[in-house]
Formats: sequence, C-alpha cells, structure tokens
Amino acid sequence: MWILQGQTVSEGRRSINSMIKIAVDGMGGDFAPRTVVEGVELARDENIADIVIVGDEYAIKPLIKNPNGVDIFHTPTYVEMDESPSNALRKKKDSSVNKAFELLKKGEVQAVVTAGNSGAAMAFAIFTLGRLESVDRPAILTLNPNVKGGLSLLLDSGGNVDCKPVNLVQFALMGDIFARCAMGIESPRIGILSNAEEETKGNELTREAHSIVKNLGLNYVGYVEGSDIHNGSTDVVVSDGFVGNVALKVSEGIAESLMILLKEGIEKKFRRKIGYLFMKDVFKEIAKKIDYSETGGAPLLGVDGISIICHGKSNGKAIKNAIGLAKGFVEKNLNEVIKETMQSHQSLQKKKEKKKWIIF
Amino acid sequence: MWILQGQTVSEGRRSINSMIKIAVDGMGGDFAPRTVVEGVELARDENIADIVIVGDEYAIKPLIKNPNGVDIFHTPTYVEMDESPSNALRKKKDSSVNKAFELLKKGEVQAVVTAGNSGAAMAFAIFTLGRLESVDRPAILTLNPNVKGGLSLLLDSGGNVDCKPVNLVQFALMGDIFARCAMGIESPRIGILSNAEEETKGNELTREAHSIVKNLGLNYVGYVEGSDIHNGSTDVVVSDGFVGNVALKVSEGIAESLMILLKEGIEKKFRRKIGYLFMKDVFKEIAKKIDYSETGGAPLLGVDGISIICHGKSNGKAIKNAIGLAKGFVEKNLNEVIKETMQSHQSLQKKKEKKKWIIF
Repeated sequence: MWILQGQTVSEGRRSINSMIKIAVDGMGGDFAPRTVVEGVELARDENIADIVIVGDEYAIKPLIKNPNGVDIFHTPTYVEMDESPSNALRKKKDSSVNKAFELLKKGEVQAVVTAGNSGAAMAFAIFTLGRLESVDRPAILTLNPNVKGGLSLLLDSGGNVDCKPVNLVQFALMGDIFARCAMGIESPRIGILSNAEEETKGNELTREAHSIVKNLGLNYVGYVEGSDIHNGSTDVVVSDGFVGNVALKVSEGIAESLMILLKEGIEKKFRRKIGYLFMKDVFKEIAKKIDYSETGGAPLLGVDGISIICHGKSNGKAIKNAIGLAKGFVEKNLNEVIKETMQSHQSLQKKKEKKKWIIF
Repeated sequence: MWILQGQTVSEGRRSINSMIKIAVDGMGGDFAPRTVVEGVELARDENIADIVIVGDEYAIKPLIKNPNGVDIFHTPTYVEMDESPSNALRKKKDSSVNKAFELLKKGEVQAVVTAGNSGAAMAFAIFTLGRLESVDRPAILTLNPNVKGGLSLLLDSGGNVDCKPVNLVQFALMGDIFARCAMGIESPRIGILSNAEEETKGNELTREAHSIVKNLGLNYVGYVEGSDIHNGSTDVVVSDGFVGNVALKVSEGIAESLMILLKEGIEKKFRRKIGYLFMKDVFKEIAKKIDYSETGGAPLLGVDGISIICHGKSNGKAIKNAIGLAKGFVEKNLNEVIKETMQSHQSLQKKKEKKKWIIF
C-alpha cells in the first residue's frame, strides 16, 4: 500500500473475484475512522472487494492491521456529523465523502460507502454524481427486518424532509425496482405510509401521491400504517424523508426502551434471573434479527452511481456488510434498470417539479 | 333508569362524590357497544361519575347488567369507524358522538368520552363545542408510558394532518399547560419532534415553529427524535397530527412485532419454555406498563369542553379509565387555565392563520 496526495497506488492482494473497487469514507460515522477501518479489513479478509479508504491518512494508517488490499486516498477535510448539508456543500468540497464520490465519478471506483452525515452525503452525491434522468429527488432506502424473517424497504428514510407528490411517486417506482431486481421479489407490495389505511385519511401530500401511484400498474396496496414497516405485510413502504426518519427512530427507540424495561424487570427477582439464563439465547436471536448492522447500510437510489449510506453508529460488521451490499448492486447493474424504468413512465414527466432545489 | 327519546331521566344511585356527569359515546369503537357498556359499568361500580351512554338503546340496553347510575340517551345514528369526518359532519349530526357533544354544550354533562372515529369526533367537537379563544386548531394529546415509569405527552396525535407553524406553537403551549396542571410537572421539558436533534435539521414546518417556540419562555429542549417519546427524556413532544399518528402506530407495531418474535423463539426449544415459566411475570409487568388502556384515552385540547378520545380498540378498562381522566380534568378546571394562558400569549395572535379550515 502506498499513499500519495490525491492519488492511490495499490500493490495489495488482488483476487479474480475482487475486480470491483469500492471507496469507503474513512471519516464518516460516530466512531470513525476506527470502525471504518475494522469494517474495511473484515471486507478485505472476506475478499468482498478492493477498497480505498478516503480520509486523513494520519488518522487512518495507524489503525490498519494489514495493509494488503486496502488503499488510502488522503484528504484531511471531513464533514462533521452535525454540520448542515448546505454548509458542507459550500465549504467542504475537499471532504472525504465528496472525494469518494469524485473517485466514483471518475470511474476509479464502482461504488461509495459512507457512515457520515447522511444529509451531506446525499447533497454531495447529487452535486458530484448527478441524478439519474427522470429522477427529481434521490431517496435513502433502508432495509428493515420484519417479523416474517424478511426485509421491508422504507424510502425515503431521511434524505428529503419536504416532498412533493411526484417525489413520493418516484420513490414508489424506485422501491418497486429495487425490491424486484435487488431482492428478487416478483411482485412487491407497495404502500404509502399514512395515519390510517382508509383512502379518506392521509395528508395533502399522501392523498395526491396515492391518486397517481394507484394508476401506475404496481402491486399497490394503498395506505399502510407505521406497524406495516415491521409486520411483513408490505414490501416497500413509501414516505417523505421526514416521516420516514421519525418512524425509523421510533422503532429503534421502542426496541431499546423495551430492552431496558426487560433488564430492570429481570434484575428485580432471583427467580427471573434463573429463567433468563434458560432463555437468554432467544434475546440474542431477536437482537440479531433486528440489528441494523446485519443489513449494512441504506442505498441512495436515484443518483448516477452506487452509493450506500450507513447508520452513524455503524460498527465494523455494518461497514463490511455495506461494502457487500454495494458490490451486489454494482453486479446487478441496478442503476441501469432504474434509469430505463423511470424513463418508461413518461406520464411522470408532466408532473415534474423544477430541477432547482435546496437541501438542508 | 328510564330511556326517553331526546332526553334522559336518571333515577339511579347518586353519591355525594359523583356529582360530575359524563356522556359516553355508546357506539364508538371497534367493539362498541359491548366494551363501552363494560367500561361504563366499571366506572359506575367505582363511583367515578354519573354516566349517560349516548347511542342506540336497542343495542345498548340488553348489555347493561345493572342499570343503576347509568342512563341512556337514545340516538340510532352513529359514525362508522372508516367514515370521512367531512362526510360525517355533513350527514351525521344526529350521531351518537355529536349528540354527546350537544349534551355537553347544553350543560347536561361536564365531559364527553368516545372511542369512535377520532377525526369525526374532533370535527364534531369543534363544530358543536367550538374552539377555545386563541386556539386555531385543537389537538389530540396522548399519554405515552416511558421507561422512567412516567408518562410522556404527544400532541398532536392525529387530529390535524396538515399543520402550519402557529399550530405547533399552540400545541407546545397547550402541552405545557396540561403537563403542569393535569400532571403536576413543575417545569415540563418541551420538544418538537424532528428527524434529528440539530437545529439545522427538521422540515419547513418544524424550523419555523422552532424559531417561535424557543422564545416563548417554556422549558424548551429543542428538537427531539422518535426515541424521545418513550425514553423519558422529554415531557411534551410536539408534532403535526400526521407525524404524531405515524409515530404512535410504529410504537404499537414494534412492540407487537417483538412479542411475536419472542413467542416464536420460546416455542423453538423446551429449555426456553422452562425459562419463560420462571420469568413470564416480567413480560406481564412490561405489557401492563405499555398498555394504552391504563391511561384510558387522549384528551382533545383546545375545544370548549372536556372531551376524551379513546383508542378504537379500547376495552372496558380503557373506557373506565378515560371516564376517570375526564372527571379529573373537569375538577381541575383545565380549560379555563388553557384559555387564560393562550390569551396571555398575545404575540401568537399576529401569526394566527385564517379561521376557516377543513378536516379530512
């Protein structure tokens, strides 16, 4: 491994299977660069892909145990987790996350993985990679474990806090494509997240989106409720990014709160502690099932390049799984399918909003 | 007990403590009138209040085990659970829920409890009782159990799906008053529900509301996330009714999903079943802690009369507890305090939107 300012030269291990090269934002995430390096080394050990870590070499290099198959692209600047995307977009073009997107734009890598500020990641992805034709606003798609043992998709999970109906319509179409192509679901059940299932409910935004989506020829099940994100009744749940993000954080919060109540309850009585010893593996099983790090990260759909945004609290396993996810999308040529499908829905073009928009 | 068309004559038991009379919508709820009658009889047995059940006497009367202290106000019409509020408002003025509000308006009862269509209940409450002066839109306030063993308030929980900043500001003020007066919290921590805690996040609606609420002199903690509804970090969580309702339903859904996973996991191994026997009372404790029926119902704040809206799936206990809740608000003269406080915030008047608005 060699590190040069502004360029990478890899002399690490190259296997026949790892022709795909992925840029990972070394400075993104609450525990970066430590957890990023851990994840990258796990991915390298499993021969998932060749990897270039983009970020501060002085912080990253000492953490790498084995430099084989891991390059560093040095850039000292990075976006803070609480920085506003618009501020980052103005002042942080040299940041690790944007430099990763630039490597993708130049064709030096085939995908980007970041656990950094998701709003900024999205802003830079759009700025540097551009949107796919016929997509007004890209969306963050999360893969949420459901009780049926599968994954329910939610988009947008946080990218676009203020949406128009056409955005939700495009999210429905992209979610449908993702479920079919990336997950092999033949006829994905699509729902719009609302406050109740009845057609008369919803807000102005969902009602207009509903009236369009129901005529798109999708397997559209109508309005769905918050519980449908996890009960396995719906494959693709569509919402604006504000509502989607609140829903995700409520889910995380409830699971954590229940675990606290359980722990407190068990501590109260010796008998319960004995019982816990007999069944504690059940809790481990459940924790594994609902662990976000198992699915790795959330693809950013609608930008012209494969990008995976990970949870800010990602551990090494999550980063590794996100790298695996990215590799899969590259192999499946996902963006070409999205582009073709979106273009075929000509009727959407009429309803398109102006191209200019601001992210906060 | 006598039943007369359009009027009630009670000859039931009257205790000194039960001078407060409460109208309960006999036809509201997924299991009405059965569960309503059960709840009313429980409340009567505990001497909480005198009660008049409003609804179809032919359906209600046969269910009553002991007619003492329970009157019926006959009205054969009722609002369906999936009926649009605007439709109900046009065509169902003779419905059980509206007749209950009319009794309140006339002063024949001091509060109303309904487990029926919450949108329609809100529409009729506003139509028949009117709003409190200085309140543009009333809000449904839910009392959510948190891990600290207390209750976190969420408003609006479903009444107003499309809000303006001034509505959120008024929700914050009403939530503060409720927390102080009805719950005895000296300095309630108020937060606006958002997609992240940083001031730069949120959507157009929350950002404008945030800029006003932070200058109101409340104990405002800024943006809070979905997890803060249940972790005990915030006393009052403010949101529009669409987001609030989605958040509540995600909570319910996650808890149910985790219980399903737990049950399935326990069934897999004999050892786990033994463990469960030793600690099953923990799960019962937790279920009781998070059971909505314990808190009874959600007050509708901002209308000129005490009204409690219950969960559509309310059982008898929930109805009974809602009657108890209503009685408490009558005794605390809650609406007078709201009216005075709202009027004292003169600055809000400048930002008030037009009075005319439509509920769907």
